[in-house]
Amino acid sequence: MSDAQRHATPDIVITDVAPRDGLQNQAVAISTDAKVELIRLLARAGVRSVEATSFVSPKAVPQMADAADVVQRAAAQCPDLRLSTLVPNLKGLERAHSAGATEIAVVLSATETMNQRNINMGLDAATDVSEQTLVRARELGLRTRAYVAVAFDCPFEGPVDLDTVLRLACRMRDAGAEEIVIADTIGAAAPAAVKSRMAALAQALDPGTLAVHLHDTRGLGVANAWAALEAGVRRFDASVGGIGGCPFAPGAAGNLATEDLVLMAEQCGLRTGISLDGLLDAVTFAESLLDRPLGGRSIAWLRRQQNPRGKSCT
Amino acid sequence: MSDAQRHATPDIVITDVAPRDGLQNQAVAISTDAKVELIRLLARAGVRSVEATSFVSPKAVPQMADAADVVQRAAAQCPDLRLSTLVPNLKGLERAHSAGATEIAVVLSATETMNQRNINMGLDAATDVSEQTLVRARELGLRTRAYVAVAFDCPFEGPVDLDTVLRLACRMRDAGAEEIVIADTIGAAAPAAVKSRMAALAQALDPGTLAVHLHDTRGLGVANAWAALEAGVRRFDASVGGIGGCPFAPGAAGNLATEDLVLMAEQCGLRTGISLDGLLDAVTFAESLLDRPLGGRSIAWLRRQQNPRGKSCT
Repeated sequence: MSDAQRHATPDIVITDVAPRDGLQNQAVAISTDAKVELIRLLARAGVRSVEATSFVSPKAVPQMADAADVVQRAAAQCPDLRLSTLVPNLKGLERAHSAGATEIAVVLSATETMNQRNINMGLDAATDVSEQTLVRARELGLRTRAYVAVAFDCPFEGPVDLDTVLRLACRMRDAGAEEIVIADTIGAAAPAAVKSRMAALAQALDPGTLAVHLHDTRGLGVANAWAALEAGVRRFDASVGGIGGCPFAPGAAGNLATEDLVLMAEQCGLRTGISLDGLLDAVTFAESLLDRPLGGRSIAWLRRQQNPRGKSCT
Repeated sequence: MSDAQRHATPDIVITDVAPRDGLQNQAVAISTDAKVELIRLLARAGVRSVEATSFVSPKAVPQMADAADVVQRAAAQCPDLRLSTLVPNLKGLERAHSAGATEIAVVLSATETMNQRNINMGLDAATDVSEQTLVRARELGLRTRAYVAVAFDCPFEGPVDLDTVLRLACRMRDAGAEEIVIADTIGAAAPAAVKSRMAALAQALDPGTLAVHLHDTRGLGVANAWAALEAGVRRFDASVGGIGGCPFAPGAAGNLATEDLVLMAEQCGLRTGISLDGLLDAVTFAESLLDRPLGGRSIAWLRRQQNPRGKSCT
């Protein structure tokens, strides 16, 4: 990729969530140095937006105890990178702000039970907390994202009403969220639902503020991303190497892999500004950290392109 | 799946090509018994159409030397199954007919070089041979399919003109092909091209006679299948376990896996009449034959559904 291509305005915007969603549940301890290096490799590959860490309770998620350090050091090394940090509430927001964070994200699950299990409060209370956090973040001059999680299927309540998702998305927007991220948290959605649901959300919200966060649990991640593109979505979460996924389902595929999304989008003529070779460097680095093979559905093919050998396929 | 569901008219028709496209390039010798058993397991899973074998020269493809036996024994065991057999020319057709085959398929590559490399004749000569074979097959009362191979990208000539594909598809139809199978032989297509190309073909041909044959080399197989569905295609080739692919690219993903296609289609509300549990039995059997792990992008998730353990993912 030439410098000119890399610096052209991309057709789609990808937020790489590997440093947060990917690393938060790993059994292996990851040093702050390593986290910052992963972020630096993503920036070098051309990624413009990263979800860097999470200001949750260090007791609940010890892997994120170094959130302030990660934010400060990543911002110093990658001054042009959008660095988002997840905050669960006002307390987390204050910690993020003190650390110098310039962008935060709140997470609101779309069902009663999911909020109860995740944060021990009901849907109404969780909505209030997210709204208060967004309002305060805007007062502090921070950029804001809001997730609507389990926006297709909930592991406890099953299929989720579109009306509920629309209502919550609008409340997040009205509270000041500049980007609304619709999340298929458990990777249960299929392309038909992604297309119709994202099209309905694009009608209700400003489509330019709408993003989708996909998991690849059933091997439908790329198909769902294409369905979202067809619905007009141009903002995506993805995780380099597909890192992430559910800690309770060993062997479960994780997030939609950034390399799969970039490959598909570029092959469809949509510029991402991201270098696949650069992403492979980040995958290789993450493999060394987690000491296991990583990579999305295209990884074997991408690596063969880097190191072609033998006869081509007929 | 209930008997009523299985016997309802499916919304999409899948031809499982594992016994032919999947097994033709395997290094391990597969017995005729094993081939017939794989076909029987596919029929038991609810698959209604199988590409059983190929009447090519036994010298060129020794794995298919037992074609006549496979056809006869599979037809005896699975009387309701559509059994298609690939024939390269009139000689292969006569062999297939003598063996009692009721359905044949011809393969025409869309580029000059691919035909030269594959069958040592140019595009015009190859088109003539395919036409003659189709005409004779109809005279013999056989059901007919015609592949247009490398219909998106050719490994030797690069991107293939849509006009060429349209012209060849129409010639195959006019020669009597009842199903035209547009093949992304090397798995190089992306959803945008699949949707636009298949929509153009559906306009030019009777859409009910149009099928697509996808490979999953770059992890885009399911996304491409969804794009074809969106273009109105309702006939698909797929290979149980994703068996197949290129013998010259070790580790290359093979054909679009039948289980991935069935999972995606059913989750989008399209009935296939095929049981995923039944397909898993066929995958497990094929693994024992080839002595290696098989399965499409959904295989880990599908097997967890059969043997759930531990806490569900939140």
